[in-house]
Amino acid sequence: MGIWFTEKQTDNFGITMKIKRTLHTEQTPFQKLEMVETEEWGNMLLLDDMVMTSTRDEFVYHEMVAHIPLFTHPKPEHILVVGGGDGGVIREVLKHSSVKKATLVDIDGKVIEYSKQFLPEIAGKLDDPRVDVQVGDGFMHIAKSEKVYDVIMVDSTEPVGPAVNLFTKGFYAGIAKALKDDGLFVAQSDNPWFKGELIRSVQRDVKEIFPITRLYIANIPTYPSGMWAFTIGSKQYDPLQVPESRFHSIETKYYTKDLHKAAFILPKFVQDLCEGDSESI
Amino acid sequence: MGIWFTEKQTDNFGITMKIKRTLHTEQTPFQKLEMVETEEWGNMLLLDDMVMTSTRDEFVYHEMVAHIPLFTHPKPEHILVVGGGDGGVIREVLKHSSVKKATLVDIDGKVIEYSKQFLPEIAGKLDDPRVDVQVGDGFMHIAKSEKVYDVIMVDSTEPVGPAVNLFTKGFYAGIAKALKDDGLFVAQSDNPWFKGELIRSVQRDVKEIFPITRLYIANIPTYPSGMWAFTIGSKQYDPLQVPESRFHSIETKYYTKDLHKAAFILPKFVQDLCEGDSESI
Repeated sequence: MGIWFTEKQTDNFGITMKIKRTLHTEQTPFQKLEMVETEEWGNMLLLDDMVMTSTRDEFVYHEMVAHIPLFTHPKPEHILVVGGGDGGVIREVLKHSSVKKATLVDIDGKVIEYSKQFLPEIAGKLDDPRVDVQVGDGFMHIAKSEKVYDVIMVDSTEPVGPAVNLFTKGFYAGIAKALKDDGLFVAQSDNPWFKGELIRSVQRDVKEIFPITRLYIANIPTYPSGMWAFTIGSKQYDPLQVPESRFHSIETKYYTKDLHKAAFILPKFVQDLCEGDSESI
Repeated sequence: MGIWFTEKQTDNFGITMKIKRTLHTEQTPFQKLEMVETEEWGNMLLLDDMVMTSTRDEFVYHEMVAHIPLFTHPKPEHILVVGGGDGGVIREVLKHSSVKKATLVDIDGKVIEYSKQFLPEIAGKLDDPRVDVQVGDGFMHIAKSEKVYDVIMVDSTEPVGPAVNLFTKGFYAGIAKALKDDGLFVAQSDNPWFKGELIRSVQRDVKEIFPITRLYIANIPTYPSGMWAFTIGSKQYDPLQVPESRFHSIETKYYTKDLHKAAFILPKFVQDLCEGDSESI
């Protein structure tokens, strides 16, 4: 059999995969960090025994976090990425020529360091001159920023450990303050099958602060249930009302102009979660 | 830890889940059949160590197999389900009042028998007077049928074991013959992440026989990669050109009128597979 890594995605369900070798293991001040080489997914980053990203399927998450909000905003110039130390979101952000500056704030400098070493296809753009990489607390960075950003992207871990503050109403209020008057944000919001209650509460909280609140989904095979959700909160621009002329050609493997719209068309039980009128499946 | 069942979805990747108890195990003439009670997904049918259906997530597959073709056809009256002995597709088919007769042909009578016993929420409509359940070879049934069916649904296992004939060009030619002049069919087509070559070859074969060939996807958390694909071949009606008036209200947990269209909007790499101009991811 060899060595297999199993992520328990719930108490009673998980994914399991064959490991070629472990590239690095370290307990950082914030979390357990492991870089492994897998047979199925290529190199992979694990934090606290959870799959964060792999070289084979990372394009889905990174494209879908970045391009939906960036094509929604007519001229995104100043971008903030909270978390995302692997650099994948930044790589996608830089595909938009309007972007003048992209600031990344990850609390764990080790994620950045080892992503550069072992995931160069993902982290390779962190040294671009338009990128300002800061090791620090994203919550505090947001709290001290005012009308600075066009788009904020929250690329956090799950709401346990270092990311717990990033799922609070106070954080969304801080984001609203840190955004310009026509800004918008996106946050990864876990999955509707196992975390319906979280999705519902994030939707409720964001709706109280942002006039436009939306949920969209993407298929990520190494994440729980394979269906991942993202919440958008926007002050002015609606991701469902993007004029055709705003789309410009970029190279992608998942995102398309048509998928931009289709990703918001939710299965009935997910729609019900957003409208707050259903229990979890 | 207790007892866990692991399905190896590829040589190097799988899902694993906690088993409360095994309800039934049997080697039928066609396959290994197991009914288990899982902690996460409720009762579950396994065939040859592969997850077929579970009471918690079965609605996705069964709704998406049935309702996309049935809302595409203006008046579906005679339906054939090949495979599908668990009865889930039949249950969804019967939600359409135009349906006069639904024939189910499954090669393995034991699947029908134990689904009725252990999955009554799924199999409960197999005794409906509109349903004709036949234990037999779906390939042969198709071969001897001519202009009989409005819609044929191929709810097969993977192209190994008893279902291997159901992925051949000869089978699709037989389906064309068995359908009326304005008929259409749907077949489950595995997943784009691990079986890109299969999806491409099915698309190619069906396109040679049917003027309208489409692929759509749905999220099924207990199936490999969480993204499942379905192929439609149609003589006349295009699932993307369904007039608004054709949709009538049915009770669903996944399918919606809007999702009917959105399910055909594919991620870029899946689109490329259908157009035959890309290698698998």
